[in-house]
Amino acid sequence: MKFAVILCGCGTLDGSEIHESVMTLLAIDRNGGEYQIFAPDDWQYHVVNHVTGQPMEERRNMLLEAARIARGNVKPLEECRVEDFDAVIFPGGNGSAKNLFTYAYEGAGCTVREDVAAVIRAFHSAGKPIGALCIAPVMIAKVLGDVTVTVGSDPGTVRNVESFGSKHEVTVQKGVCCDKANKVFTTPCYMLPARISDIADCADNLVRAMVMG
Amino acid sequence: MKFAVILCGCGTLDGSEIHESVMTLLAIDRNGGEYQIFAPDDWQYHVVNHVTGQPMEERRNMLLEAARIARGNVKPLEECRVEDFDAVIFPGGNGSAKNLFTYAYEGAGCTVREDVAAVIRAFHSAGKPIGALCIAPVMIAKVLGDVTVTVGSDPGTVRNVESFGSKHEVTVQKGVCCDKANKVFTTPCYMLPARISDIADCADNLVRAMVMG
Repeated sequence: MKFAVILCGCGTLDGSEIHESVMTLLAIDRNGGEYQIFAPDDWQYHVVNHVTGQPMEERRNMLLEAARIARGNVKPLEECRVEDFDAVIFPGGNGSAKNLFTYAYEGAGCTVREDVAAVIRAFHSAGKPIGALCIAPVMIAKVLGDVTVTVGSDPGTVRNVESFGSKHEVTVQKGVCCDKANKVFTTPCYMLPARISDIADCADNLVRAMVMG
Repeated sequence: MKFAVILCGCGTLDGSEIHESVMTLLAIDRNGGEYQIFAPDDWQYHVVNHVTGQPMEERRNMLLEAARIARGNVKPLEECRVEDFDAVIFPGGNGSAKNLFTYAYEGAGCTVREDVAAVIRAFHSAGKPIGALCIAPVMIAKVLGDVTVTVGSDPGTVRNVESFGSKHEVTVQKGVCCDKANKVFTTPCYMLPARISDIADCADNLVRAMVMG
């Protein structure tokens, strides 16, 4: 099974969450799949000092920073064609809610990048599984509307998801919400208190559920 | 068992290899240990575009970039005291051979950062296990001299290790070289052809060997 994995940088505060991204790749490999990493070839929303949490006076490109996680093997998102893959996965991180969609600073009124929304709609239309970790399920809900996802149990995030016409399923750590009718698979990761081994288990459980369909 | 994990940035070409770093943290957690990440609070040797492999006109700090892998929980290397830990681990990456020691551009004539060499000597003197992945075993050999390590099987690297008065043990992927007399534990990772699950297994095998002593 061939997975497209969509990243947007390298670091939870301004790009893709690194543990979730690496554990997704590991889970795909461990479950016999292959992957190709993609990222938008565009600027990150901003760059954040990951010690202080404060923005820095720098610019970084989502594709070039994602290449750090990908060890160079990353392609521009515009080259992600649904016919080349069996499934797509979106790791999370606060940075994904700044770069791929605008949830981190616009909440329920957020918008999703058009190229990202197009990928989500294409896989959904083709009946191919879509996976999302952490905060990324909010983006799937925003684009597809009438689907069921999980972000763990945070009440404010749950309310926002429901405002899109989506259903929310409360999960505990390592759980996967399987909307089999829509082939949408989601798992909480760092949306709940987590050890790094929880992230590995979330990713593995997610990929297994996607493989089983 | 409490591990100090020493990083030097975030990305294989100019900092710590991300998969090796994350899998080291996972292996420690899975084997019931705890960890604290450290990095020198100093500039990286340079910054590399991980798509083209070419240097970029930028400066980045090892501690701030390591904070991306550490999700903020990283301390300056000068605060790493041997009495606070049971063991120390050095993930690899070409960047570690630029930042922590100078092997990537000086080969066998390399030098090791004094603060890094002091940590290695302190754990060795205290009889506490030292672990190293990928290219980092070269640094352990350079500092300690009469120890046995593995870097897989690359002939040039093996010759350089032997020029330090160290012994080299050839390993295949996922193997661990255990120098029990010196409590030095090393594993090849990306020094040999590897899938990401091989890196997870290398790190897990390394940590298990260190726990067993």
